[in-house]
Amino acid sequence: MAYKVGIIMGSLSDLDIVKTALDVLTQFGVESDVVVSSAHRTPDITAAWSRGAKEKGYAAIIAFAGAAAHLAGVAAAHTNIPVIAVPISATALSGLDALLSSVQMPGGIPVAVMAIGKAGAKNAALFACQIIALKDEEMFNKLENYRSEMREQIERDNERLKAQL
Amino acid sequence: MAYKVGIIMGSLSDLDIVKTALDVLTQFGVESDVVVSSAHRTPDITAAWSRGAKEKGYAAIIAFAGAAAHLAGVAAAHTNIPVIAVPISATALSGLDALLSSVQMPGGIPVAVMAIGKAGAKNAALFACQIIALKDEEMFNKLENYRSEMREQIERDNERLKAQL
Amino acid sequence: MAYKVGIIMGSLSDLDIVKTALDVLTQFGVESDVVVSSAHRTPDITAAWSRGAKEKGYAAIIAFAGAAAHLAGVAAAHTNIPVIAVPISATALSGLDALLSSVQMPGGIPVAVMAIGKAGAKNAALFACQIIALKDEEMFNKLENYRSEMREQIERDNERLKAQL
Amino acid sequence: MAYKVGIIMGSLSDLDIVKTALDVLTQFGVESDVVVSSAHRTPDITAAWSRGAKEKGYAAIIAFAGAAAHLAGVAAAHTNIPVIAVPISATALSGLDALLSSVQMPGGIPVAVMAIGKAGAKNAALFACQIIALKDEEMFNKLENYRSEMREQIERDNERLKAQL
Amino acid sequence: MAYKVGIIMGSLSDLDIVKTALDVLTQFGVESDVVVSSAHRTPDITAAWSRGAKEKGYAAIIAFAGAAAHLAGVAAAHTNIPVIAVPISATALSGLDALLSSVQMPGGIPVAVMAIGKAGAKNAALFACQIIALKDEEMFNKLENYRSEMREQIERDNERLKAQL
Amino acid sequence: MAYKVGIIMGSLSDLDIVKTALDVLTQFGVESDVVVSSAHRTPDITAAWSRGAKEKGYAAIIAFAGAAAHLAGVAAAHTNIPVIAVPISATALSGLDALLSSVQMPGGIPVAVMAIGKAGAKNAALFACQIIALKDEEMFNKLENYRSEMREQIERDNERLKAQL
Amino acid sequence: MAYKVGIIMGSLSDLDIVKTALDVLTQFGVESDVVVSSAHRTPDITAAWSRGAKEKGYAAIIAFAGAAAHLAGVAAAHTNIPVIAVPISATALSGLDALLSSVQMPGGIPVAVMAIGKAGAKNAALFACQIIALKDEEMFNKLENYRSEMREQIERDNERLKAQL
Amino acid sequence: MAYKVGIIMGSLSDLDIVKTALDVLTQFGVESDVVVSSAHRTPDITAAWSRGAKEKGYAAIIAFAGAAAHLAGVAAAHTNIPVIAVPISATALSGLDALLSSVQMPGGIPVAVMAIGKAGAKNAALFACQIIALKDEEMFNKLENYRSEMREQIERDNERLKAQL
Repeated sequence: MAYKVGIIMGSLSDLDIVKTALDVLTQFGVESDVVVSSAHRTPDITAAWSRGAKEKGYAAIIAFAGAAAHLAGVAAAHTNIPVIAVPISATALSGLDALLSSVQMPGGIPVAVMAIGKAGAKNAALFACQIIALKDEEMFNKLENYRSEMREQIERDNERLKAQL
Repeated sequence: MAYKVGIIMGSLSDLDIVKTALDVLTQFGVESDVVVSSAHRTPDITAAWSRGAKEKGYAAIIAFAGAAAHLAGVAAAHTNIPVIAVPISATALSGLDALLSSVQMPGGIPVAVMAIGKAGAKNAALFACQIIALKDEEMFNKLENYRSEMREQIERDNERLKAQL
Repeated sequence: MAYKVGIIMGSLSDLDIVKTALDVLTQFGVESDVVVSSAHRTPDITAAWSRGAKEKGYAAIIAFAGAAAHLAGVAAAHTNIPVIAVPISATALSGLDALLSSVQMPGGIPVAVMAIGKAGAKNAALFACQIIALKDEEMFNKLENYRSEMREQIERDNERLKAQL
Repeated sequence: MAYKVGIIMGSLSDLDIVKTALDVLTQFGVESDVVVSSAHRTPDITAAWSRGAKEKGYAAIIAFAGAAAHLAGVAAAHTNIPVIAVPISATALSGLDALLSSVQMPGGIPVAVMAIGKAGAKNAALFACQIIALKDEEMFNKLENYRSEMREQIERDNERLKAQL
Repeated sequence: MAYKVGIIMGSLSDLDIVKTALDVLTQFGVESDVVVSSAHRTPDITAAWSRGAKEKGYAAIIAFAGAAAHLAGVAAAHTNIPVIAVPISATALSGLDALLSSVQMPGGIPVAVMAIGKAGAKNAALFACQIIALKDEEMFNKLENYRSEMREQIERDNERLKAQL
Repeated sequence: MAYKVGIIMGSLSDLDIVKTALDVLTQFGVESDVVVSSAHRTPDITAAWSRGAKEKGYAAIIAFAGAAAHLAGVAAAHTNIPVIAVPISATALSGLDALLSSVQMPGGIPVAVMAIGKAGAKNAALFACQIIALKDEEMFNKLENYRSEMREQIERDNERLKAQL
Repeated sequence: MAYKVGIIMGSLSDLDIVKTALDVLTQFGVESDVVVSSAHRTPDITAAWSRGAKEKGYAAIIAFAGAAAHLAGVAAAHTNIPVIAVPISATALSGLDALLSSVQMPGGIPVAVMAIGKAGAKNAALFACQIIALKDEEMFNKLENYRSEMREQIERDNERLKAQL
Repeated sequence: MAYKVGIIMGSLSDLDIVKTALDVLTQFGVESDVVVSSAHRTPDITAAWSRGAKEKGYAAIIAFAGAAAHLAGVAAAHTNIPVIAVPISATALSGLDALLSSVQMPGGIPVAVMAIGKAGAKNAALFACQIIALKDEEMFNKLENYRSEMREQIERDNERLKAQL
C-alpha cells in the first residue's frame, strides 16, 4: 500500500496556498486527504484526525495555519507521524507570528517548519516525498528528476536572460 | 460559592513566575487550582482540565507558557470561561515568540494576553480579580484599596527619592 | 439590569474595525456605549469616561487604538472594570507598535490584549461576553451555541473544499 | 528667573538612569524638580504635575519610562511645554517596547524621543539645555564648550589608543 | 525678530511629508527655510547649512530622512540649535531602519525623534512651536487653541459617530 | 540494515547543543555519523558529504549552524535525503539570523527547521526517529513510550508542584 | 586588460533589480557577465562559476538573492575575489530574511552587504567601480564626476523645490 | 608602494573588536592607520580624515560604530575609496540599530557591511585584503593559504570531535 499525505488547513481561506502543495503531490503521484480543521474552533476533530494519522497510512502530515499558528503543534501532540508546518502570512505581522508560533516548539514534540507561504507549501510537499522516498526508489528517482528539471529550467532562464540583455 | 481561578503552566520551570500570580490571588483571598500540563506533551489532560473549568467554578483560567506558547489558545478552545495568557521568556527570542503565539489568536476564540513575565503574572491575577469583582463588591473594594496602596507606595518612593538626591 | 460594554476608540478612522466588535455584541444582545476619545487629545474626557465605567454598569471596556496605543492603559489607570485592548495597524510598523504599547503594561494595572485588527475586535467582544456569562447562564449558552455554529461552518467549509478539489 | 527642567520617572527603579540626566543638568547649572509618578498607578498626580509645568517655569519635561512607556505621552497630553522621552530597557524586550510606545505618538501631541537608556538620558538633558540656550547666550556657550571638551576627550582617546597599539 | 525653523530633507521625494510640517508652521505663523541636502551626497552643504543655524535665527531644525537616516545626526553634529528628526518609511523595512538610525544617537549629540511619517512631520512642527512658545506667550496661546480645536474636532467626530451607528 | 542519521555542524563550538541530539538518538538506538564541516570554509567537503548521504544509509541529515546559517540549505542542495536544520543562537541577534537563514528556503529545495538551540536539537533527533519509524514498528513503539514517559514526568511534576505550594 | 564584474542572480525574477546595477556598470564602462544560478538548485554551477572568478578577470562578484539568501555566501566560499551581496525583498518578511542571511557571515569568509533592493543594486555597482578605481585613475575620476553630478542634481532639486513652495 | 588600510572607530570602547581586524591585517602584512573619531562629536576630523583617504594610500577604510552607526556612511560621503562597515552591538538593541544604520544606505554612496561584532571585524580585514589582492598576487596567495589553514583547522576539529564522542 502506497503512503498518503494528510493535509490539514486551519481555514478554507488558505486553499490557494494549499493547492501549491497539492500540485506537487499530484505531480509525484502521492495521494492525499485534505481537511479543514482548526486547532481552536474544532479542537476535538483536529485531535481525532491527528490521532488517526498512522492508521490512515499517512507518511506525513502537512499543517497550514496563519496568525497564532497552533495547528501543527496541536497535530504533533497527538501523533508520532512526522508533522510539517507551513506558516501563512494572514495578519498585519506578515507571517512572523505564524512562523514563531510554529517553529519554537518545546523539546519533546517536533514540528518541521518550512518557509512562510507558497515557497513553504511547495517544499512541504517535496519534503513529504523525500520521506516517502526513503523506502521507495522510484520516488527517489522522481525527486532526482525534479532537480534535473529545475537545473534545466535555470538553463532556459539563462537563455531568456541573454535575450533580454 | 466563591469563584476560583484555574492556573495551568506548561512547565514546572515557570513556577517562579506563577508564584507572582499566586501571591496576588492569596492577597485578595481568591482560591486557585494549580496544574502543570502541556499543550503538546499532555494534550488530553489539558483539554479535559479546560473543559471542566466551568464545573470547577473557575472565574478565569490563567495559562503560563513560553516558546511556541499554545497553552492558552488550546485551553480557550475547550471552554467559554475567560482565558488569560502570560507569555514567558523561555528561549533565545526573549518571549517575543510566546507573546505572538499567545496574542495573535484568530477570530472566534479569545485569549486575553498580559505582559511577558512577572509583570504579566501579577496583572493576570489582578485581572482575574477584576472579573470576580463584577459581582462581588467586597472584591471591588479590595481592588480599589490595592490601588490606593500603590499610590501610597509612590508617595513613599518620592520620600526615598528626596533622601537620595 | 443587564451589563453593558463601554467602547472607546482613539480615532473615528478606526470605526470599521470597531464595527466588527459591535456586530458581535449585537448578535449576543449586549448593549454598548461607543465614544471617540483620545488618550492624548482629550485626556480628561478619557479619564472621566473611564472613571464612570462602574457607575454606567459596564462589564468591560474595549479600547481600540493604533500607533503608540496608550488608550487602554490610560483607561485602566482610572477604573477597576476590566479593560480589553484591540491594537490597530495604523502606521508603517503594521501594528507592532500598538501591540507592544498595549501589552507590556507594568505590574499593577492590567490590560487584556487581543490580536491586532479585526480578529482582535471580534475576540474582544466575545471575551466581554464570556465575562458577562459568568453570572448569566443564558449568555453562556449563547457562547456555546456560537462555538457550535463555528464547528458547523467548518463542516460546510469541508463540503466546499471537496467541491473544489 | 532661570528656567527649570521637570523630571518625571515612572518607577524609582530607574533612578540610576535618571541620575545620568541630573548630572548633566547640574553641570550646566540647570535646576530641576524630580518626581516619581506613574502614568498608570498615579494618573491624576501625573496629569496635575504636567498641567502645572508652565506655572512651575519648566523649559522642558523629561519623562523616563520602560515597558509600555505611556508616561511621556500622558504628560504631553496635559501641557504645551516640550516633553522629552527617555525609553528604558526594563523588560524582556530590551526597550523596543518602550521605544515604540514613546515615539509613535499620533499627530497633534508631540513627544521628543531620545535613545534607550543612559545615552538617551544624557542627551535628554543636553537637549533641554539647547532649548534653554535659545534665549540664554551663556548657556549656548556652555554647550559649545561641552562640545569642545568632547573633541578634546577624543584627542586624549587617540593618545591612549597609540599607547595601546 | 521672530524665530524661524530650518527644514532639511534628504530627498525631494519626501516633499509630500515635509508639506505636512510646513502646513502646521504656516498655520502658526512660523517662517521656515526649506532645503534639500543629503548627509551623504552633499555632506559639506549639510554641514555648512547646519553650522549656520544659529546665525540664521533658527529656533529648531527639522530633518526628514529615510533608510539609513543619518541626516538629523549629521546636522546635530554641527550645531547646538535643537534638531528634530522625522524618520521616513522609504525602504522595504517600513521606516524601522530610519527610526533606529535617528533615535539611537550616542550620548553627547542629542536628536529629538518624532513618529515615522506624516504623524511625525506634524508633531515636529508642533514641537518647534512649543520651543518657540517658551518665550512667546502669543504662540503658547495659539498652541492652547490648537488643542481646543482638536478637542472640538473629537466632539464633532462623536456627532458623526452617533449618526453612523 | 538499520538507518543511520548524518549529523553536520558548522563549528565545533556548537558541540554542546549537538550532544542534546546525540543523546536522544542513542536513547532510541539510532547510529549516527558526526562531522564538523562549514558551508563556507569547507564547501567541497560539505557538498561531497551531503551527496553521499543516500549511499551512507542516512534516513536524515541534521545540520547545526548559527549566524548566516547556510549549512542546512547547502546540504539540501546536494541530496534528496531529508535535511533537518537546528538554528543556533551564536551572535548578537540571538538566533533570529540563523532561524530566518534556515527557514526561508526558496521553493524547490526543502529544509525542515526546528526551534533555536537545545529544544530544536532534541526535536531534530526525535523527528529523525519519526521518519525512521515509518518503516520500523519497534521504533514507533519507542516513540510512543517516550511520550508516555513525558506524560509520567508531568505527573511527577504535579506531585512536586503540590509539595511546593 | 580591463576588469570585469561577475553578476549572479538566484532567480530570473530579480532581473529588474539587477538591471539597476547593470545600468551603473554600463555608465562607468565596466563590462560584466550575468548569470542566473541558484545556491540550492544549481549548486555545482554556482560553485564552478565562483571558482572561475579570478580566471575570468572579475574585480568583484555581485550576488542578488532573496529569502534565505545563501548565494553570496556560497559564492564567497569558492573564491577570494571580493563578493558583494544585494539582498532582495522577495517574501512576506520584506527582505529582513535576505539581509540577515547575507550579512551575518561567520568569521573567515567575508561578504560585503549593500542595502535591500534597488538602492543596494546601485551601490553594489558603484562599490565594484570603487574597487576597480584603486588602480585605474580614469575610473576614479568618473566616480568623482558621478558625485559632482549628484550634487548638481540636488541643486536642481532645490530649484524645483522653490518652484513648488 | 604598498596599500594601507584606514581604520576609524567611533569610540575607544570598541578597541577590543577593532583589534580582531588589526590582528588579521598584521597577519597578512598590511599596514594600517587607526584613529578614534566620531561622526557626531568630531565631524570635521572625520570628514577631513576620510577626504584624505586616497592621498594616504588607503586601499579601503574600515569603520567601526555602534548605536545609530553613522560613521561608515559619513566617511563614504567624503571619499571614493571603498568603505567597509562593522556594526557594533553597543546598546539594548544588540546591534540591530547599528546594522540597519550602516546597511540601508541610499543609492549613490555605497558602504559594504559586514556582520555585527568580531566576526564582522575579522571579515572586514579579510575583505580589505581581497581588494588589495586584485593587484597583488602574493596577497592573493596568502588569502588562498588562509583558506587552506581554515580547512586544516576543521580537519583538526574533526579529530578533536572524535576524541570527545
